[in-house]
Amino acid sequence: MIDFSLSPALLELKKRTASFVRDHVIPEERYLNEHTGLPAEKLAELRRKAREAHLYAPHVDEEWGGMGLDMREMSVVFEEAGHSLLGPLALNCSAPDEGNMHLLEMVATQEQKERYLRPLVAGDIHSCFAMTEPPPGAGTDPASLRTVATRRGSEWVINGDKWYITGATGASFAICMARTDDGVEQGGRQPRASMFLIDADNPGFQIVREIPSLDAHFVGGHCEIALRDCVVSDEAVLGAVGEGFRYAQVRLAPARLTHCMRWLGVAQRSLDIAAQYANTRESFGQTLGKHQMVAEMLADSATEIHAARLMIWHAAWVLDTGGKGRYETSMAKTYVSEVVNRVVDRALQICGSHGVSMDLPLALFYRSVRPFRIYDGPSEIHRSVIARQVLKEAALRAEEDETAREGQALPQRTTSSDASQGGDR
Amino acid sequence: MIDFSLSPALLELKKRTASFVRDHVIPEERYLNEHTGLPAEKLAELRRKAREAHLYAPHVDEEWGGMGLDMREMSVVFEEAGHSLLGPLALNCSAPDEGNMHLLEMVATQEQKERYLRPLVAGDIHSCFAMTEPPPGAGTDPASLRTVATRRGSEWVINGDKWYITGATGASFAICMARTDDGVEQGGRQPRASMFLIDADNPGFQIVREIPSLDAHFVGGHCEIALRDCVVSDEAVLGAVGEGFRYAQVRLAPARLTHCMRWLGVAQRSLDIAAQYANTRESFGQTLGKHQMVAEMLADSATEIHAARLMIWHAAWVLDTGGKGRYETSMAKTYVSEVVNRVVDRALQICGSHGVSMDLPLALFYRSVRPFRIYDGPSEIHRSVIARQVLKEAALRAEEDETAREGQALPQRTTSSDASQGGDR
Amino acid sequence: MIDFSLSPALLELKKRTASFVRDHVIPEERYLNEHTGLPAEKLAELRRKAREAHLYAPHVDEEWGGMGLDMREMSVVFEEAGHSLLGPLALNCSAPDEGNMHLLEMVATQEQKERYLRPLVAGDIHSCFAMTEPPPGAGTDPASLRTVATRRGSEWVINGDKWYITGATGASFAICMARTDDGVEQGGRQPRASMFLIDADNPGFQIVREIPSLDAHFVGGHCEIALRDCVVSDEAVLGAVGEGFRYAQVRLAPARLTHCMRWLGVAQRSLDIAAQYANTRESFGQTLGKHQMVAEMLADSATEIHAARLMIWHAAWVLDTGGKGRYETSMAKTYVSEVVNRVVDRALQICGSHGVSMDLPLALFYRSVRPFRIYDGPSEIHRSVIARQVLKEAALRAEEDETAREGQALPQRTTSSDASQGGDR
Amino acid sequence: MIDFSLSPALLELKKRTASFVRDHVIPEERYLNEHTGLPAEKLAELRRKAREAHLYAPHVDEEWGGMGLDMREMSVVFEEAGHSLLGPLALNCSAPDEGNMHLLEMVATQEQKERYLRPLVAGDIHSCFAMTEPPPGAGTDPASLRTVATRRGSEWVINGDKWYITGATGASFAICMARTDDGVEQGGRQPRASMFLIDADNPGFQIVREIPSLDAHFVGGHCEIALRDCVVSDEAVLGAVGEGFRYAQVRLAPARLTHCMRWLGVAQRSLDIAAQYANTRESFGQTLGKHQMVAEMLADSATEIHAARLMIWHAAWVLDTGGKGRYETSMAKTYVSEVVNRVVDRALQICGSHGVSMDLPLALFYRSVRPFRIYDGPSEIHRSVIARQVLKEAALRAEEDETAREGQALPQRTTSSDASQGGDR
Repeated sequence: MIDFSLSPALLELKKRTASFVRDHVIPEERYLNEHTGLPAEKLAELRRKAREAHLYAPHVDEEWGGMGLDMREMSVVFEEAGHSLLGPLALNCSAPDEGNMHLLEMVATQEQKERYLRPLVAGDIHSCFAMTEPPPGAGTDPASLRTVATRRGSEWVINGDKWYITGATGASFAICMARTDDGVEQGGRQPRASMFLIDADNPGFQIVREIPSLDAHFVGGHCEIALRDCVVSDEAVLGAVGEGFRYAQVRLAPARLTHCMRWLGVAQRSLDIAAQYANTRESFGQTLGKHQMVAEMLADSATEIHAARLMIWHAAWVLDTGGKGRYETSMAKTYVSEVVNRVVDRALQICGSHGVSMDLPLALFYRSVRPFRIYDGPSEIHRSVIARQVLKEAALRAEEDETAREGQALPQRTTSSDASQGGDR
Repeated sequence: MIDFSLSPALLELKKRTASFVRDHVIPEERYLNEHTGLPAEKLAELRRKAREAHLYAPHVDEEWGGMGLDMREMSVVFEEAGHSLLGPLALNCSAPDEGNMHLLEMVATQEQKERYLRPLVAGDIHSCFAMTEPPPGAGTDPASLRTVATRRGSEWVINGDKWYITGATGASFAICMARTDDGVEQGGRQPRASMFLIDADNPGFQIVREIPSLDAHFVGGHCEIALRDCVVSDEAVLGAVGEGFRYAQVRLAPARLTHCMRWLGVAQRSLDIAAQYANTRESFGQTLGKHQMVAEMLADSATEIHAARLMIWHAAWVLDTGGKGRYETSMAKTYVSEVVNRVVDRALQICGSHGVSMDLPLALFYRSVRPFRIYDGPSEIHRSVIARQVLKEAALRAEEDETAREGQALPQRTTSSDASQGGDR
Repeated sequence: MIDFSLSPALLELKKRTASFVRDHVIPEERYLNEHTGLPAEKLAELRRKAREAHLYAPHVDEEWGGMGLDMREMSVVFEEAGHSLLGPLALNCSAPDEGNMHLLEMVATQEQKERYLRPLVAGDIHSCFAMTEPPPGAGTDPASLRTVATRRGSEWVINGDKWYITGATGASFAICMARTDDGVEQGGRQPRASMFLIDADNPGFQIVREIPSLDAHFVGGHCEIALRDCVVSDEAVLGAVGEGFRYAQVRLAPARLTHCMRWLGVAQRSLDIAAQYANTRESFGQTLGKHQMVAEMLADSATEIHAARLMIWHAAWVLDTGGKGRYETSMAKTYVSEVVNRVVDRALQICGSHGVSMDLPLALFYRSVRPFRIYDGPSEIHRSVIARQVLKEAALRAEEDETAREGQALPQRTTSSDASQGGDR
Repeated sequence: MIDFSLSPALLELKKRTASFVRDHVIPEERYLNEHTGLPAEKLAELRRKAREAHLYAPHVDEEWGGMGLDMREMSVVFEEAGHSLLGPLALNCSAPDEGNMHLLEMVATQEQKERYLRPLVAGDIHSCFAMTEPPPGAGTDPASLRTVATRRGSEWVINGDKWYITGATGASFAICMARTDDGVEQGGRQPRASMFLIDADNPGFQIVREIPSLDAHFVGGHCEIALRDCVVSDEAVLGAVGEGFRYAQVRLAPARLTHCMRWLGVAQRSLDIAAQYANTRESFGQTLGKHQMVAEMLADSATEIHAARLMIWHAAWVLDTGGKGRYETSMAKTYVSEVVNRVVDRALQICGSHGVSMDLPLALFYRSVRPFRIYDGPSEIHRSVIARQVLKEAALRAEEDETAREGQALPQRTTSSDASQGGDR
């Protein structure tokens, strides 16, 4: 039955995370450099504290050193962690490592897990996910994938170009998507592809450059990568050959949602900062918050954050109860990414020149949240996905209505407008 | 724990309501006249069918002839009923009767319930709620209340003017708000007021006119009313003397939410109509739905309806679990009313000249949903309420953070940004 | 050189129009019935007064009984007339007659002008323009035109269906668009079409019904029309055979702009009403206008009306100086129609329940302006037209830049982003 | 009479500016460092070329080495220059020097002009304008001015704090606003203030720090400044004692508009880049520009840029013809700043990950245009100014209408909704 309560244990965890972020993480923000990120020893120290506070790797199974939370629990904890850009790093649940850990847990062999997952969870190494390609390769349209892995005996030879590979600098390995149909056109649109685990010291794996970008550097930059006769063994295949696109979905739907959770924390913190500012700064004889144009911005931000949170929780519930959540995570990603941008923008406006200055974190937030409307599928792509679902359901309903008018029994159907049923599981 | 599932019983009820609306209610829409509403015998017939289908008075306790649903169950059923403007009328859960029944159940004496509530649930009579006054009286600012009830022996003499009293024409009685402090200024801003049950045949209760209005006539028009030496006995007082404003809150928070539920149904139907149209109408060589500008409108409507539904469910849960829900229903009312307007507007745009014509119900919807952004508190008032809460919480948090910085134990607090806790219960 | 001054004569005309509307037209609004319009004798009286005030048929050449204003002058006068829905009727410059007069002036033979234009200007008759067809005929996509005129000796036999033909009830004649390629597919997409002058008493010209519609009835309803073996002579062809689509453009670009002018008057009047209301109505201890959320709505409306007016003036200048103005009128139509809707919506919100009531004209305005975002090309079509122009110019510029980089002389080019040059003349 | 044509001379100047920016300025963008700006020798070289191309200091009177353009001409030239963030620097018409030159021309003595204006125009020095103060000083509310200048014999001693003083690092002098009423409260709200020319090497003038900020560094950073017993002579007073706020208006209205002109160039360039990208990048089998969601963004940007340009031209005409333009520049500043932000945002979205990268200039534009919605009066302040004007005019009109109803002659009045008359001159 419809229920929005958090268990006492989760409430306690939520508060503990909030206190940790306030007391230990936010004070370290002063050491964050927009070009080089947080110094490695600072990060290590934060992770040590998070481990001590039993707040470490919340999304990973306990077997591998995490807390084993489900998606709904993650929704609560990741949002709290997200109040600081450093929070998810401290808890080792930041992108892209978090999504890679999830994928490895789901798909990797026991041996691969020991080799890659365990040290990743431990924070000894980090990783990247190499799917996106420069034009005319795979961007928003995965069917354009051009990187090719060719079998040669018991090895694969991979060639192609990747870019916008976040976290590549300093990563120990990449999960790399490549065509394994030798570039031969399939009947359908989508090529057959596979995922490969490539060690970063493979001589065929070259970082061409870090792409200077609007958002600040955190975890190894957004990189351009060249794969040049990159040779890997059969053991480097992640999961089954030819299942790359299916695995990408396994990674993408939850990863899309964990992005939403973390960024919602940034939105909530921005609203908190703006409200605090509006309570204390005076203008024209009263505090800013008494001016209705400011009040309106606060109200809209609070309302939209509320809606965004509920949408995340709902999609998390769909995933937790076995749904694929493609439609729901598309709605959540589009809505949350746009809400987050609006909320940060309003907070910055309320704080005026303070907001523009780096004295407050809002200017950095402003730069950091903008790309979220683009990566993991730009809003335009997700809107198309959503519309297709709406149209499909309308067609089904028209058919049903037709049947009903003809006096026949109605077929059983679960629609996703039936929000309680989670759509496309 | 966070849960969005509907019980099998509720799912069955939802589907049954949907079928009833589709098979019995929507076909009657052709008899709806924008000036005179649905003919009385048509309405009586619909209600007879609803009773037969066990879909009658879902919000009323079984003791009084209803189904005894809680707010979350109502959320699901009212939305389905709301697919037609006639649906809530058929189920006898339309405004203002629905809110009046609730208020009577909560506050009335057993005798008052027998006299007013029972025939109201039975559909033998209807009612109105007389609070709003023409300027400079009580509009969005209840402190401006000018209607005065003066005690005279065991009677009360009420004088004042009311307007925008929906459903007054043909109503058997009114629940009327009046000052009972003899117009004397109180220390605080809010006057003391009481509620009175006034029979419509009271000679002091005069309907001045029906105010022609943007929305169509359904249940007795929006009326201007003159109270002129309107004499009622002590038994006409609803609840306790002086508690009028508290009772208004008892009525308003849930009534605000049931409005949201019903209108959300109108939004969902509008989207359904537009999607169906987009599936079948061709333009420039493809169906409308394939044009991205149309797809975008469908996607935004679907996403916003989803968010609106979740926000209603959340506020319903807050009320069901004992919260007052003032903040949550303000957020829901503002958000839902604006979403509903946007969704109907987009549906009308997609359907083009069909949308403008009365051949589809969208033009009537367009007119009907607009006032919802004004009555029950215009968006501006609710945004102020929401902002005040945001500012109050920010002040509390600042205090807490201060305390935390001083190394002291944190006081326990539940914030309403803590969406799981329902805020102001 | 850039100049926004009005000549003293135009200023005087503007003020005279404003006074006329205030003193003579607005007082008649009380006689306006939303179903039957203004009584004929009231309209005749208004036109008599307009003629006396030398404010009659401002857009028509003096030869035919008008004032001979150019588009810029019309911009000023039509906006003032548009303060009342009855203003353009009074001045005999309302749609569709106004556009038809323009088309007849441009294209008709002297004989046709004497027969149709002269009594139309005199106000003795009225007319309609029959182009739009029910699906799958010509709606937003003119290439779908299905009404066919077949030559038979010196006559034409016209068959087809039209709908949304505004003003058809009571019209003396229709200007009707029909294919004159015998329905044969052309090489290109656009069929060859011609325009015909059809007398309404032609037995082959049948009004099927008036389509009930969101907007109020003014000038003969929006009608469905059946052309059934409708026989007309060669003299009924307006202009040259096969030039129908070219003439449609002759009519459409200016007609689109005169719509903008009139509706902008509705927007300005709505803002005036709201501002006046905000000056006098008190709430929470101060006038509404002192509340910033109200102030914001007033400011946005004033700013957008200002932008809309300048855009109309600019497009009018483009047409006056010989440009076709396709791009500029598309921008103006899209922008103005959306501004007008927003301004009326905000005014209604500011006036609260007064705004919803028919005591103020805002509720009627609200219904009347909505279709303007659909007819004369819905916003979606115009946005596509605008985008195509933007893309075309970008391609040209890329070519130029290429040339410049190669050190060659630049070709002369005038772009329409060069707002001073009026684009596509 | 309404006219949007540019004189042949202005058209030629416009094209020459465009070519100069394309051929000489944009290629230098690669040398722009977001922290240190353009190397001094690069800037000097650009200015030398601009002088050679007769494109230097377009806003300054020829007597002082400029081109003597009026505001309308500046509108055209500054927009073209604004296509690059370096363009206005190259032409020596960037903020804050440009506004300071204007103020010096209007107010300074001949001697002050020789000492400060001449080298400023020559590009030998640069300057800053020190008005804004940290809270609780003069921010958006100038009445809060706290810096005080106290007369001591023939000298003034200035004490106070300033911040967000753009361009202070490296400036040779500051124009500084200070109270000259010895801090005594006046009857009215606004204190008496004066402007002082302070040499940067004055020991009482201390740069405390550069405030790290969202936007990139160009012309000396946004600085915090401490005035500590800063002694200046009587000759340092700019204009008359006590006229500081009046002079601030002299500077602000045109400066507000020149900001709009320059930033509009950034918007136009962003649209050009996005359109060019949409013409060449393919996705899902067609160029991006063929996708309607992209087309819609292009169309909206083109339309809003068009409206913004016309609004700037109109306000420039008001100033050129002697109006103060307070209302018009407030409308232009609010509208243009928001349009510019939207256009850059859409362009970035269209270009996807390219847009986010620094490979295109959009990411830098995105950061640079955001503060424009805050400085020179945040949108909220300007909306209040605009609303007050709307309300004032409504009150006047109500009075007039009253008079008219009483049958008396109408007083002559010019309203600013009468866009042709420039309002408050």
